[in-house]
Amino acid sequence: MRERAPDQLRDITLVPGFAKHAEGSCLVKCGDTHVLVTASLEETTPSFLRGSGKGWVTAEYGMLPRATNTRMRREAAAGKQSGRTQEIQRLIGRSLRAVVDLAALGERQIIIDCDVLQADGGTRTASITGGYVALAQAVKFMKMTGAVTKPVLKDHVAAISCGIVAGKPVLDLDYSEDSTALTDANFVMTGAGGLVEIQGTAEGAPFSDEEFATLLGLARKGIGELVAKQKEALGE
Amino acid sequence: MRERAPDQLRDITLVPGFAKHAEGSCLVKCGDTHVLVTASLEETTPSFLRGSGKGWVTAEYGMLPRATNTRMRREAAAGKQSGRTQEIQRLIGRSLRAVVDLAALGERQIIIDCDVLQADGGTRTASITGGYVALAQAVKFMKMTGAVTKPVLKDHVAAISCGIVAGKPVLDLDYSEDSTALTDANFVMTGAGGLVEIQGTAEGAPFSDEEFATLLGLARKGIGELVAKQKEALGE
Amino acid sequence: MRERAPDQLRDITLVPGFAKHAEGSCLVKCGDTHVLVTASLEETTPSFLRGSGKGWVTAEYGMLPRATNTRMRREAAAGKQSGRTQEIQRLIGRSLRAVVDLAALGERQIIIDCDVLQADGGTRTASITGGYVALAQAVKFMKMTGAVTKPVLKDHVAAISCGIVAGKPVLDLDYSEDSTALTDANFVMTGAGGLVEIQGTAEGAPFSDEEFATLLGLARKGIGELVAKQKEALGE
Amino acid sequence: MRERAPDQLRDITLVPGFAKHAEGSCLVKCGDTHVLVTASLEETTPSFLRGSGKGWVTAEYGMLPRATNTRMRREAAAGKQSGRTQEIQRLIGRSLRAVVDLAALGERQIIIDCDVLQADGGTRTASITGGYVALAQAVKFMKMTGAVTKPVLKDHVAAISCGIVAGKPVLDLDYSEDSTALTDANFVMTGAGGLVEIQGTAEGAPFSDEEFATLLGLARKGIGELVAKQKEALGE
Amino acid sequence: MRERAPDQLRDITLVPGFAKHAEGSCLVKCGDTHVLVTASLEETTPSFLRGSGKGWVTAEYGMLPRATNTRMRREAAAGKQSGRTQEIQRLIGRSLRAVVDLAALGERQIIIDCDVLQADGGTRTASITGGYVALAQAVKFMKMTGAVTKPVLKDHVAAISCGIVAGKPVLDLDYSEDSTALTDANFVMTGAGGLVEIQGTAEGAPFSDEEFATLLGLARKGIGELVAKQKEALGE
Amino acid sequence: MRERAPDQLRDITLVPGFAKHAEGSCLVKCGDTHVLVTASLEETTPSFLRGSGKGWVTAEYGMLPRATNTRMRREAAAGKQSGRTQEIQRLIGRSLRAVVDLAALGERQIIIDCDVLQADGGTRTASITGGYVALAQAVKFMKMTGAVTKPVLKDHVAAISCGIVAGKPVLDLDYSEDSTALTDANFVMTGAGGLVEIQGTAEGAPFSDEEFATLLGLARKGIGELVAKQKEALGE
Repeated sequence: MRERAPDQLRDITLVPGFAKHAEGSCLVKCGDTHVLVTASLEETTPSFLRGSGKGWVTAEYGMLPRATNTRMRREAAAGKQSGRTQEIQRLIGRSLRAVVDLAALGERQIIIDCDVLQADGGTRTASITGGYVALAQAVKFMKMTGAVTKPVLKDHVAAISCGIVAGKPVLDLDYSEDSTALTDANFVMTGAGGLVEIQGTAEGAPFSDEEFATLLGLARKGIGELVAKQKEALGE
Repeated sequence: MRERAPDQLRDITLVPGFAKHAEGSCLVKCGDTHVLVTASLEETTPSFLRGSGKGWVTAEYGMLPRATNTRMRREAAAGKQSGRTQEIQRLIGRSLRAVVDLAALGERQIIIDCDVLQADGGTRTASITGGYVALAQAVKFMKMTGAVTKPVLKDHVAAISCGIVAGKPVLDLDYSEDSTALTDANFVMTGAGGLVEIQGTAEGAPFSDEEFATLLGLARKGIGELVAKQKEALGE
Repeated sequence: MRERAPDQLRDITLVPGFAKHAEGSCLVKCGDTHVLVTASLEETTPSFLRGSGKGWVTAEYGMLPRATNTRMRREAAAGKQSGRTQEIQRLIGRSLRAVVDLAALGERQIIIDCDVLQADGGTRTASITGGYVALAQAVKFMKMTGAVTKPVLKDHVAAISCGIVAGKPVLDLDYSEDSTALTDANFVMTGAGGLVEIQGTAEGAPFSDEEFATLLGLARKGIGELVAKQKEALGE
Repeated sequence: MRERAPDQLRDITLVPGFAKHAEGSCLVKCGDTHVLVTASLEETTPSFLRGSGKGWVTAEYGMLPRATNTRMRREAAAGKQSGRTQEIQRLIGRSLRAVVDLAALGERQIIIDCDVLQADGGTRTASITGGYVALAQAVKFMKMTGAVTKPVLKDHVAAISCGIVAGKPVLDLDYSEDSTALTDANFVMTGAGGLVEIQGTAEGAPFSDEEFATLLGLARKGIGELVAKQKEALGE
Repeated sequence: MRERAPDQLRDITLVPGFAKHAEGSCLVKCGDTHVLVTASLEETTPSFLRGSGKGWVTAEYGMLPRATNTRMRREAAAGKQSGRTQEIQRLIGRSLRAVVDLAALGERQIIIDCDVLQADGGTRTASITGGYVALAQAVKFMKMTGAVTKPVLKDHVAAISCGIVAGKPVLDLDYSEDSTALTDANFVMTGAGGLVEIQGTAEGAPFSDEEFATLLGLARKGIGELVAKQKEALGE
Repeated sequence: MRERAPDQLRDITLVPGFAKHAEGSCLVKCGDTHVLVTASLEETTPSFLRGSGKGWVTAEYGMLPRATNTRMRREAAAGKQSGRTQEIQRLIGRSLRAVVDLAALGERQIIIDCDVLQADGGTRTASITGGYVALAQAVKFMKMTGAVTKPVLKDHVAAISCGIVAGKPVLDLDYSEDSTALTDANFVMTGAGGLVEIQGTAEGAPFSDEEFATLLGLARKGIGELVAKQKEALGE
């Protein structure tokens, strides 16, 4: 039973610098969803960008086998990443690149690793929100070492899910809400409120333009709060 | 250079029954994008549905290596399907299931194979539009053989892409438009106009709610025309 | 029931230039067997030929999952090509290279992709016969662009199957004949009638020298007709 | 520079019940080495034990890509587990099974997942020490539910590494010590002091029986302390 | 330089019972080509034959990495069998099945493993010739245990290569001959002289019907001698 | 039933130069365990050593499918090497490198392939003992060709297993002893008696320091005899 208001986020904690070795990192907790994100700086750009003067930001995503209620097979043991995993890591990379000036980054690559320690819905959106914090730390590191001189980040970026649960539009679904939602949508937006990515899916009956507009409104509110949390965590 | 009006579809051809062996099939041509879709009926349902009385519809997607301007490596030779391929086939399956009464289908599976013979943008939306035709043929086949007695299909479903190209919202992007679009969105809707899936991505700058609403309007017009084409092809 | 004479080919159609993007292509129809062949030119030769001044011609082969009466698992999804697929693509490559002057080709590679859209027996021989047409188109393209100046093709090459069905030697087996043939042989020959490849297999009882000689005679007649079709298609 | 005495362990923290979903879990911190261990109960035994009345305990091991100073390739993306990973997970499983009464467990399986969040040497021994705690929790869970009635655990089990660093035998190597050790050994012992597993390797010059005996003595002291920590964590 | 007559086999040794554990085995030496063949009896037939009353004979083939002059990558390490390996093992299985009464074998499977210890040309034909001996031993074993009562083997089967080397047709090519042969053919025949498999390939110029007939004649002579060796080895 | 004395090795045969093509080779027979080892010289060092002036020695291990009493699946067909295989080949490589002066070897690599033709316990230790002989032959070959001028091998190295069987410590376990041993240990030592690797495992009850010391004493005796056999085989 949801005890939050329909437009209320779960408790959010962002712990920057959680990992000792990485250039940037963040432990994100959105309720019982816990994701450890690291940003690793590599001094080469992917081959398709060599000589372009541009860098790249990419993401990988994984879940510990018992992050979920029932143990899932370890992808390394299965010998491949599932379609779901690949879809999520493509989304995270695309979302973060939307606020990066790849030319200012230079011919480098930042790899964002998002590993879900515990899952309770919304792991992909938590990864994006926390991924921004880890990325910002890595950029700060590069500034300190003089590797970059121009601003690399054009804006904040954060993400949230919304859905229609038991006939009512709600913000930030946990796992039990996600499982019963008739419509489920993920939104990625910048700090300035620009849309970066929209993914809406009818799990049951098709949805209407009006329902979708309501979800978009909820997301806009939630993402505003998440960006405020990011600023606080980064001391901006 | 686009010679069509901004809200005009490319020429569409739907050829049902194109394949000799399959229970349902359709060759879809959307301009220079040609996809061969087959629907294969199998008399077992996936293991997670055994004993539930319900069936399943799933999709697989592939591109011939030289469907594109530059030859791409054959996925069978590479030993795995790319993340893009998996993302697309999950989308196609989800979209078609949205109009299927899985209980009326019974403990069977229909596999929709979408193979791109020639690509010029919009292969995933063409696969959905043509996939519906192949699926409808397979359902007709099952009715004839008495395998199903209740209606299996709840509505039509079709899909189209829209985008903002050179600052202008346009319907049904070909490859050169898709490559230069700042915002790119795929829409899946039912015959009754219900939304099944929305995927919008900012390739360049973020987009606004208003821009997105315009794209949605264009899609609604286009999908209406596609559903009409489906009805014509199926002789409804 | 075979309605053709024992030494009669199925209806053959060769459609050169079927694919928009490839340097050479051909849709081959031998009765109900339909193969789409493309020839892709790449400006690098395999590593074992670097610095030799010679080029290479190689082939890849695939079947759409529902090209056959019963759906077969997609090789890209299975994660590997079957032994049968590899055997066939090695045969196609070897057969086409038999008529190519690799030095005249120069340090380039032509990849012949043979994708079976619909199968009714004889897909490997149809791939060779149509592969020659796609290859010839690609060579013509290279001549036009000045990439090659000396003749690259030394002769035509085509292929056909023969077998002993219900005790009688017949030419060009369709699937039902192939399934019941006691002896089954594939022959590859040049336009001048030289033998390039012979593969004969006893599916039931062993066969005699005389039986084999009869099959070779049938093949010689059929390949002569196929070469004539190739010349016609290429406007020679 | 080592600031601990040669026979002193790093600071150890064992946090049982760290993971929400698992039947047993433990976060182990040995200095800067942090491993999250979960114990998952499955109600089937592996096929080689079906009908034997016995259960099984097995382990899987993984490292987050940036657990280390330099990012390592994600094994799920690489498509296979390295030889090192497999060796480690076989060792963990074997060590834990040494104190389990498989008949008392019954035809069930407990999977111990050890995921290294941060690495600074000794990840495999930390996994065993923490693995015991997670396993003991899962056994307690089974007792509560009545799934088992007889004692399943015969004793404690814990592990530690020792080595000869700069000519001196020391207990509990961190990464920098491990990298420079001439001899490196891992010891697994029970609470009663019985030897379960010994693995000693000469990284530089061969070692003598006396040197090895000294390492064994250090390990005995360290494992005694680790077992005391386990008891404290489990409230025994 | 060949020191044998053109129609002379290399020295052949067949050592039945070479392997301790297998139901049948044979070490075959054809000159410097040494193959260890084992026949393993399994009491289940492949799934496509369950309930048919029939058994199966299949083959696997491998080469030790340094069986050849230059070390080749181990296929187990590469993670897959090459196309060449699969082609060879399919040929061996087909050839042996040609003389097996699968109904008399009953619902069992015999797996013929052919592992090349040392290679000097003709490994696939040596595998067939030696494979027959291992198979015959396994059949004898089944007779002794009463597992089969009717004759399982209908005839002998053996294989040899021939080729045109330096303009001259020769029997039983070693590696240096095989590398320079313009035409290269493998023949499989029964003890009664029936043809089971013919594979002829033009490595250089195409070959004529007459050349091919000469090679067939050579093969017939060589296979006669091989069958005599098999009988001697089996004490028939 | 063991007919040897508790401290007696099985009959050992070392046949250097068994393989025609390799720079070094040895067929090792320890009772019914037969391993064919080859040493292949490659004129490049692994990438992590490029420019260091140092070479590398590595090992690969495999078993013929029917080396064992029950046929095991071919690893090349399974598509990967088991954890056991990888563990063994890592041990063999580490053990041999312990006596190699990698700088004296220069930027080259020697690959030791150990293929078990027949297994009856102790295949990994036999591989090390025989691997040294093959390696020594390859080093001799390099001296002859002038590739190396300084001594490459610092000492001999050999290996043996010991265990506690039916309550009694014994040397050199065969398969039936290994299966019933309560404690099982592998030891690798140099000719001078230095310890290179120790691996002890409690298969049943934990073992004591004293028991382990007894096994170490047995191993020391056995390895002394194996080193004498190596010297004899190499004519030292």
